[in-house]
Amino acid sequence: MTAQTPKTYDDLKDAFQSFISRRDKDRHMNIFWETNPSKFDNGNQSLIELSGGMPHESFFPIESINLNILKEPVSNDTIAALVTKEKPAALPLARTLQYSLSEGFPPLIEFVKRFITKLNNIPLYDTNLWKVVLAGGSCDSLFKIFETCTDENSTVMVEELTFVPVVSNIINTGAKVIPLKLNLNNDDEGIDLNYMESLLSNWETGPYKHLNRPKFLYTIPTGQNPTGLTQSVEKRRKIYKLAQRFNFIILEDDPYGYLKFPKYNHENPLENPYKDDQSITSEEYIKNTLMKSYISMDTDGRVIRFETFSKIFAPGMRLSFVIMNNFFYDKFLKFQEISTRQPSGISQQIVYSTIHSMTSSNYNNDVIESWLQWIMKLACNYTERRNVMLQTLYESESFNKAQFSVVEPSAGMFIIIKVNFNEAKGDIISQMGKLFNLMDSNGVRAILGYKMAFDQEFSKDHLNFFRLTYAYADGNNQIKEAISRINKSLLEYFE
Amino acid sequence: MTAQTPKTYDDLKDAFQSFISRRDKDRHMNIFWETNPSKFDNGNQSLIELSGGMPHESFFPIESINLNILKEPVSNDTIAALVTKEKPAALPLARTLQYSLSEGFPPLIEFVKRFITKLNNIPLYDTNLWKVVLAGGSCDSLFKIFETCTDENSTVMVEELTFVPVVSNIINTGAKVIPLKLNLNNDDEGIDLNYMESLLSNWETGPYKHLNRPKFLYTIPTGQNPTGLTQSVEKRRKIYKLAQRFNFIILEDDPYGYLKFPKYNHENPLENPYKDDQSITSEEYIKNTLMKSYISMDTDGRVIRFETFSKIFAPGMRLSFVIMNNFFYDKFLKFQEISTRQPSGISQQIVYSTIHSMTSSNYNNDVIESWLQWIMKLACNYTERRNVMLQTLYESESFNKAQFSVVEPSAGMFIIIKVNFNEAKGDIISQMGKLFNLMDSNGVRAILGYKMAFDQEFSKDHLNFFRLTYAYADGNNQIKEAISRINKSLLEYFE
Repeated sequence: MTAQTPKTYDDLKDAFQSFISRRDKDRHMNIFWETNPSKFDNGNQSLIELSGGMPHESFFPIESINLNILKEPVSNDTIAALVTKEKPAALPLARTLQYSLSEGFPPLIEFVKRFITKLNNIPLYDTNLWKVVLAGGSCDSLFKIFETCTDENSTVMVEELTFVPVVSNIINTGAKVIPLKLNLNNDDEGIDLNYMESLLSNWETGPYKHLNRPKFLYTIPTGQNPTGLTQSVEKRRKIYKLAQRFNFIILEDDPYGYLKFPKYNHENPLENPYKDDQSITSEEYIKNTLMKSYISMDTDGRVIRFETFSKIFAPGMRLSFVIMNNFFYDKFLKFQEISTRQPSGISQQIVYSTIHSMTSSNYNNDVIESWLQWIMKLACNYTERRNVMLQTLYESESFNKAQFSVVEPSAGMFIIIKVNFNEAKGDIISQMGKLFNLMDSNGVRAILGYKMAFDQEFSKDHLNFFRLTYAYADGNNQIKEAISRINKSLLEYFE
Repeated sequence: MTAQTPKTYDDLKDAFQSFISRRDKDRHMNIFWETNPSKFDNGNQSLIELSGGMPHESFFPIESINLNILKEPVSNDTIAALVTKEKPAALPLARTLQYSLSEGFPPLIEFVKRFITKLNNIPLYDTNLWKVVLAGGSCDSLFKIFETCTDENSTVMVEELTFVPVVSNIINTGAKVIPLKLNLNNDDEGIDLNYMESLLSNWETGPYKHLNRPKFLYTIPTGQNPTGLTQSVEKRRKIYKLAQRFNFIILEDDPYGYLKFPKYNHENPLENPYKDDQSITSEEYIKNTLMKSYISMDTDGRVIRFETFSKIFAPGMRLSFVIMNNFFYDKFLKFQEISTRQPSGISQQIVYSTIHSMTSSNYNNDVIESWLQWIMKLACNYTERRNVMLQTLYESESFNKAQFSVVEPSAGMFIIIKVNFNEAKGDIISQMGKLFNLMDSNGVRAILGYKMAFDQEFSKDHLNFFRLTYAYADGNNQIKEAISRINKSLLEYFE
């Protein structure tokens, strides 16, 4: 296929019909209500609807909600926001507590579109040919995209170490998952390009020749889970070119993208350019700090981008969104309509009202700017936590005895440490298990890295790591205490 | 199969393995985190978790929420409830804003179990062999049960007139849907037993002999959508016996069950025994007013019951629950884990906190009683609306000219009116369309009944009705005005 920029919906359909699941043909929403607007207009008399089975708003037990919103993360200062059945006028409780459109409420979608446009997380083709849909968290978004796109005939490429529940989503559709080699070093972070290109160029003689050529790449390009690694812009451009050459779709899962850090400074470990006295402006944050997304390189319509409010707002909102071309959007939305329908209305209300209330008292009512400031302050906190954990790891006796090495993240929530096991002492997985138990008895837990490899034979050189998170700890002291317990465990293990 | 009461999980597995979808075998949740509790206990030092990729609660922008809760529907009196990251202790924001278990939060599930136990909406077999799972609204619950249970080999019986989006769910799994005849008269409401028994007894010579015998009945037994009809207890018992004899599962979808009305009194149209001076106690409500559910007759484990907070709380919560035997539960939960995961945490928080705050100022802290009182007051409001609409219909000139007849509901949100078309004037569907347009131009809309028949040839005698709802109108005067516009339209049509 020759890559081409779509000009019309038919261009999208021609290019992407073959990327739709066999099961799509059985999906038809049986709509029984009239969707055309009424022509009735009789002065001050309006149409009376006896159609929709919707309870009257006076039957909803929530009369109003006062939200107390933090001015910034980890502060005590709050802003009060009142939400009632009438307010805010653009999205009041009377609407959000009611049944609504499966794609999400227009005012929230409009905000999302303005936000991603400001951040340049939008495609290069005609702005009328892509859309945003809200969903119930990125697990839900991903589940739905695989239901929309993959079936028994599909092959999906996935980073060999990944958030493995996604592998469950793919296999559930009958599709096959194949691993892509990862470089776990800070010089060439993430997917091994040579491996990938060679695999695709020599498919018919390669290890997966019994499978169909891959139609999808699922990747977490920034602050990857579990490795914490971030693909360079150069790597992204090359992978996009491979996608054009070998005609596959890039599923860009980016929950951690906004939690982007400056490089760790070994000379000055606690350096944090987000901090007040070294503060980065939002323009600099967008231009220099954030990574260029795959979708921002997309001329063809072949990138589907997944974002979520889980990491920058709260996971319990179960609210996410997907950016994709209109053809995929229509198929996705049809599936959303016949499955879960809309994400929680009250979640949409609270996210919308919180973001818009942060604005009213700050930043000249610029809702994009105030939300960016919130996110940058979050990134500041994560930078500090990352710094503290790295510093403590590097200062530990165990590290200085070369018992483990560290992969430095520049985004997200995770650091991995690779343990330098002696293979004479038994296979890696059983050694990892022993060390895990030792750590547990010393009062600290981390993720056994090999559990995030979905093909352990393929990843046999990458089974010796633990994934640590600095996200959940109660503060710097707890991070230090946790690392000291890990240090103690490693020293004991290697004694 | 001989019906038998299950004693163990293996009994359930033996009895119901054949009711599980082909696709279930591809469902495996890849869990990478440790699920065993730590043995670490070192005085006042606790385990430090560096495992879960969860943001610290200080990063959630919502510090606290003040809910203003109505004391009763349509009132102005409110109760204030404060929810913070620490309160209520059983389910604080720090938990509900976080990632959590796919099945829902235990304190809310516990409440649901107490509630359905009090209302006798639980099965007759061992209480350790059934469970409750929360989901994202009944559309989501139903979607998931069909994904769990049906595939290309399945046949599902559905009332010929129904909430047709459910038909979309079934067809999406590849399964076949067959209609069951309905009686639309108030003497023998709902599924036509003779038709159903004859169909099942003579399957091999019947109209669907090319399909497998049905394994499922999907039914809305109380306040059925669209007909508003309620199956008698006697009918339910007979259908349950058919389910035992022909070995099928009953999917009991009961969104309207709690909105149960006394019979309409033609002598005293506005009679409303829920009203203060004729008040029904909650004991009487449970014993005499509510219908006996299918699950309360279930000795075998063959009833799956669907309830929702949409009609008694608010649809925008997107919160529902399913009651089923442990074998179906495990399969359902596995699918929930690899698809949407948990329903919105903030929805669960608000439903939990609202229900529990209604209690604190009333009813001696009996949370079940106070929630029942809320529901009964809702039922009171619906009874009044039903009465007003029926009275206005019966008093209309069009009705008295026998231009339409009325089916009286004793539960739910809907009334259907059957128009007495003259077939000489054209086919029913085009006559319905003309009348719909006339109604629209007179400023009122209702649902075209034939759009809720998924097999219009089968239902050719039932295409001449409109579904009206009294749920959404702004009050009694609007209901009267709507009916007067319908009356005007009918008179014009038959002129």
